[in-house]
Amino acid sequence: MSVRLPFAFSFSQLSSVRLLSAFSRSVCYCHRVPTAANSQVRNLSFATSRKKAVQINSGKPATTAMSLPTIDRDTLDGVLKRRFFFAPAFDIYGGVSGLYDYGPPGCALQANIIDVWRKHFVLEEDMLEVDCTMLTPYEVLKTSGHVDKFADWMCRDPATGEIFRVDHLVEEVLESRLKGDKEARGEAADSVSGTEEKKRKKKVKEIKAVKLDDAVVTEYEEVLAKIDGYSGPELGELMKKYNIVNPATGGPLSEPLEFNLMFETAIGPSGQLKGYLRPETAQGQFLNFNKLLESNNTKMPFASASIGKSFRNEISPRSGLLRVREFLMAEIEHFVDPLNKSHPRFPEVADTGLRLLSNTTQHEGRTEVVEITIGEAVQTGLVDNETLGYFLARIYKFLIKIGVDHNRLRFRQHMRNEMAHYAADCWDAELHTSYGWVECVGCADRSAYDLSVHSNRTNEKLVVRQTLAEPLTVESFEVELDKKKFGPKFKKDGKKIEQFLNSRTQCELEDLAKELSEKLKITFNVEGVDSSVEIEKDIISIEKKTRQEHIREYTPNVIEPSFGIGRILYSLIEHNFWIRPESDQRAVLSFPAVIAPTKVLLVPLSNNEAFEPMVNELSRLLRRAGIPAKIDDSSATIGRRYARNDELGTPFGVTVDFQSVQDRTVTLRERDSTKQVRGTVEEIIASVQRMVGPDAVSWEEGTEGLASFDAAAE
Amino acid sequence: MSVRLPFAFSFSQLSSVRLLSAFSRSVCYCHRVPTAANSQVRNLSFATSRKKAVQINSGKPATTAMSLPTIDRDTLDGVLKRRFFFAPAFDIYGGVSGLYDYGPPGCALQANIIDVWRKHFVLEEDMLEVDCTMLTPYEVLKTSGHVDKFADWMCRDPATGEIFRVDHLVEEVLESRLKGDKEARGEAADSVSGTEEKKRKKKVKEIKAVKLDDAVVTEYEEVLAKIDGYSGPELGELMKKYNIVNPATGGPLSEPLEFNLMFETAIGPSGQLKGYLRPETAQGQFLNFNKLLESNNTKMPFASASIGKSFRNEISPRSGLLRVREFLMAEIEHFVDPLNKSHPRFPEVADTGLRLLSNTTQHEGRTEVVEITIGEAVQTGLVDNETLGYFLARIYKFLIKIGVDHNRLRFRQHMRNEMAHYAADCWDAELHTSYGWVECVGCADRSAYDLSVHSNRTNEKLVVRQTLAEPLTVESFEVELDKKKFGPKFKKDGKKIEQFLNSRTQCELEDLAKELSEKLKITFNVEGVDSSVEIEKDIISIEKKTRQEHIREYTPNVIEPSFGIGRILYSLIEHNFWIRPESDQRAVLSFPAVIAPTKVLLVPLSNNEAFEPMVNELSRLLRRAGIPAKIDDSSATIGRRYARNDELGTPFGVTVDFQSVQDRTVTLRERDSTKQVRGTVEEIIASVQRMVGPDAVSWEEGTEGLASFDAAAE
Repeated sequence: MSVRLPFAFSFSQLSSVRLLSAFSRSVCYCHRVPTAANSQVRNLSFATSRKKAVQINSGKPATTAMSLPTIDRDTLDGVLKRRFFFAPAFDIYGGVSGLYDYGPPGCALQANIIDVWRKHFVLEEDMLEVDCTMLTPYEVLKTSGHVDKFADWMCRDPATGEIFRVDHLVEEVLESRLKGDKEARGEAADSVSGTEEKKRKKKVKEIKAVKLDDAVVTEYEEVLAKIDGYSGPELGELMKKYNIVNPATGGPLSEPLEFNLMFETAIGPSGQLKGYLRPETAQGQFLNFNKLLESNNTKMPFASASIGKSFRNEISPRSGLLRVREFLMAEIEHFVDPLNKSHPRFPEVADTGLRLLSNTTQHEGRTEVVEITIGEAVQTGLVDNETLGYFLARIYKFLIKIGVDHNRLRFRQHMRNEMAHYAADCWDAELHTSYGWVECVGCADRSAYDLSVHSNRTNEKLVVRQTLAEPLTVESFEVELDKKKFGPKFKKDGKKIEQFLNSRTQCELEDLAKELSEKLKITFNVEGVDSSVEIEKDIISIEKKTRQEHIREYTPNVIEPSFGIGRILYSLIEHNFWIRPESDQRAVLSFPAVIAPTKVLLVPLSNNEAFEPMVNELSRLLRRAGIPAKIDDSSATIGRRYARNDELGTPFGVTVDFQSVQDRTVTLRERDSTKQVRGTVEEIIASVQRMVGPDAVSWEEGTEGLASFDAAAE
Repeated sequence: MSVRLPFAFSFSQLSSVRLLSAFSRSVCYCHRVPTAANSQVRNLSFATSRKKAVQINSGKPATTAMSLPTIDRDTLDGVLKRRFFFAPAFDIYGGVSGLYDYGPPGCALQANIIDVWRKHFVLEEDMLEVDCTMLTPYEVLKTSGHVDKFADWMCRDPATGEIFRVDHLVEEVLESRLKGDKEARGEAADSVSGTEEKKRKKKVKEIKAVKLDDAVVTEYEEVLAKIDGYSGPELGELMKKYNIVNPATGGPLSEPLEFNLMFETAIGPSGQLKGYLRPETAQGQFLNFNKLLESNNTKMPFASASIGKSFRNEISPRSGLLRVREFLMAEIEHFVDPLNKSHPRFPEVADTGLRLLSNTTQHEGRTEVVEITIGEAVQTGLVDNETLGYFLARIYKFLIKIGVDHNRLRFRQHMRNEMAHYAADCWDAELHTSYGWVECVGCADRSAYDLSVHSNRTNEKLVVRQTLAEPLTVESFEVELDKKKFGPKFKKDGKKIEQFLNSRTQCELEDLAKELSEKLKITFNVEGVDSSVEIEKDIISIEKKTRQEHIREYTPNVIEPSFGIGRILYSLIEHNFWIRPESDQRAVLSFPAVIAPTKVLLVPLSNNEAFEPMVNELSRLLRRAGIPAKIDDSSATIGRRYARNDELGTPFGVTVDFQSVQDRTVTLRERDSTKQVRGTVEEIIASVQRMVGPDAVSWEEGTEGLASFDAAAE
């Protein structure tokens, strides 16, 4: 059966969020002083990176080369916890893994990303945004393929009841054995983030300094390079071969079992209507296709969009926000004529340069990206069609706008064995983080698959009817039944048999026509009909007929850009995180103003009451100008208060001092450079207004004409 | 056990969304011509309304007086379906009751309401917005009381498997008998909305013209007036007494059973971590209290806020968007010192006039509202405290801002038997719709209940520590244990016993001290300890001690304004719905511009290509100005296109005609009055800009200086 493979399910993702662990070398990147616009600077000078997944076919061990910037994750984790960007949910009850709450800065960051997303995609392109139900009945997800195929492999320890995700377990055990081998050989282990490493050590207690044979090392490395490619039974074989047991107890484990990743529940009081929490927002958009087409005055092409939570019952969540059980998605379904995938606005983006990693390169076991324009990529056929290319460029522009580092962003094409059979082409926008390359946006041409399966299941046409300027002459095989004989013969099965015949492809009908003319009857099986069905020539005719068609009826193809907002948010935090060279303690999050949780920090010099009226006035004026601001009138020193807000990523600070009370001038501080200027309240607010929002100007431009101000050392 | 009664659960709501059915008279209100600002006009001339719930105590039959405006629901339903504001989810699969998808206009309306809400509450008051997890483990909801008490009564037909919500069933059967009686007496039945009535008739097949004794009529009416006050067993008695059976089959039904309304699921692969979908967003805010206080630099008071989906597994959902299984909530938890519930910004709202229905009035069996200022209401003690009063006024301002009709809005105080025992005071903002009064916002002072129960359960302090200017002398009973004897005696039970003693109130300790001095030992039971605990005087001392305290530690009280966004959205649609007197077919939704799904409709006079560049330019300019606009270049007549957009609630239309192409002038049309003015592209855009957004000016002000334009009849 065909199955939908949404991005949260594909192989590429499984491998992309993998911990780099033994195969990575962390390159410390924590001491950089960015310019305000640093994320937009293109710098192609970094070395190419390695990705394990791509070695699935080559079978070669992953190399240890890994030269992309990474960050001091312990320090970052401290900032995120201290400033409550997010935290484990139900913390005081001990927490539940894979569930996180967003605190005020995380929540504002998320809201701002969504706001930019909505403007960039929905408003700019006149998309039809919908908000569909999360609770989803069994039948819908059975049809989409999720009931049968949305699963991971797990195994159980019958003694302790512990459950392991099999691929992760094999990986961890082999990695720890390799580490033990390195220790025994006196080689330094790779420096992975301390906390993470401690956690892993605790889980896999097996790490002992035991030297392995060279051949075994090679074999382990090969297995690890291919880990995402194994089926459940193959993983079971590996467990036997390498004697993989419960690392904590040494006890034996069960065979791998498939575990469906959807949360199941019962809808209504009878307990009989089985439902699931949706694994993606896409299905609701497909099911509403006819209403959406109607809303668009039946004009094609058009896109729907949806922002909402989806769910995935991970076996063993890890990697923080990158693998969670409840997550925010933003998905677009762009419906297009399969015969014409050009895009009217393609010329607007044709010059956009993207870093592309093609499947050809990957199949050759290499991972170099090429940077070419999307115009060239479509022209040469590297990217399948204009509409897909248009969205890749738009995704790129969106990510750059919100502060993603161009150098840590690549588009990776799905490999041929990775892509669903019906998909025409598929690219993932991957962002590089300290956990490796993370798939953050999937962009697939899914052909007519989704609309077709729901249409077949429900007998509801999900099609576009196009009036043709000139009628078309069409030849096709058609089935005709002699109802007077057919009805009495098949009675209650008649409807199912008719439905079966009506849903045959032209190709299948041709075969049946042949069978009928040769054997004077046809024989076939129909789901739900007990015995094999036999129909004689006197009841059925299947013949090629010629018709004039004035209406062309077609099932649109769908191009689906699908965004994992939590992953983007986390990657963005890493891309914008750095530490001031002057002190290990001075962490900064250099968010672009448009997505910064708060735009302006208002700081009175001290908690002297004299400053209060002016601070309140500034707060009111900024609010009226639609600029989110926070007052920090705590007793901490100005420097400390600025440091706190650097950690929150607040781009601007306004200080009220004794002179302010005299002459209504205040100072304005820029977060990244710590530069300051001075001007009247009105001048400063006007200046800030120019520097926030989607068309923000630079600090130099925004503060033109204002006197620079030398602050005391912070 | 104490239980949290969130608004989605309280009696008041159960009654408020009741269909008015036999007790209402629909007053047709469909032919009015509103001014653009009609919803803000105060008109106190309407007659007072009746609400059934308030007769619970009086025991008198509900009167049939019902003079509030209502609307032609069939016509409205047609508009909402045709324009895809919302629709049953999984429609092509036959739908699932209580689940709805929002189409593009409904989704935009919802997003705009949320946007205003966020600005009005979160930004204006510097609230700490959080986004918490929906999946919630059993323990949390056990503590909050939802596992035990968040339930409705249902009964089952053992023959057919059908399930009924008991109070609804009794109500429907008795109502249909009363209707049959009226028919038999030759009285006209009340004209309830046709479709709704048809649906109900289909369900309750019992309607026969059978005359009842006068005494029976009175008895039925009394039962119906008190229907929300019956317990499960009492409903069972009524079913027996009145011989209530399955209306469709006449078959007997089971005794009433309690049915928990939370959706249950299993978190993780073991199936052993039971979880629920949250029934409200509040718990996440309580659990994060310490982190939030820290985020606020430990300053009090402060508020958190959250916008997100909650779930309620209704037994038999009905009344469209008013009773659904998945819904959007926006909740605020304002944490305040129990000794000081004043609010610094109260003076700003003190003059706001509200229509209040006090519990005293209700206990007297009456329903008149009084319109007084919130300042007076707090001063006289009608509203418990300033902070609660402040929020009532802010809720009022929010509702009016988004277009609620002042005359169809009242604040109803919870009656004493309706309010949770710990609550200090509670008011619901109720909006009147064709389904009756609907509770849309709850605003309760919940005292320290929520933080206390979670703190007790987890042993995690959820308190504020206030440094006192002058130390306090405190007398209190304190427990001291001789650990050397206590430990060996109680072994593994010791911890539980100590915890039990530490969580005693002063009152309980006083009793224990008395017991100890009299009997030289104390005896008590502890949960989780098998036998009764006995402690002698040589191990324990309980004595009154005097201490100097420099830090005051207290559990904050919480004021909780809780918004049901779907209910507000639906009520708002009804409040803004009318039909042009000149034609039954011309429905209009007069949304204020700030929440209208689209602000401007761009209409070329015809689909002549000459108009295209200008329409596209206008579209670009409006987008740059941040004004959502839609182009309608379909071949329908201008009038038809305007009519379509009147149904979508689009406040402004811009027409491009042949003159436009010559001189860059276009016409601007106002939805409600259909007035038109003409000006240059730039003038018209500037004019629209003045009339949309939160500080929107009126049509007269916004179009000052522009020439009025006489359009041909639409």
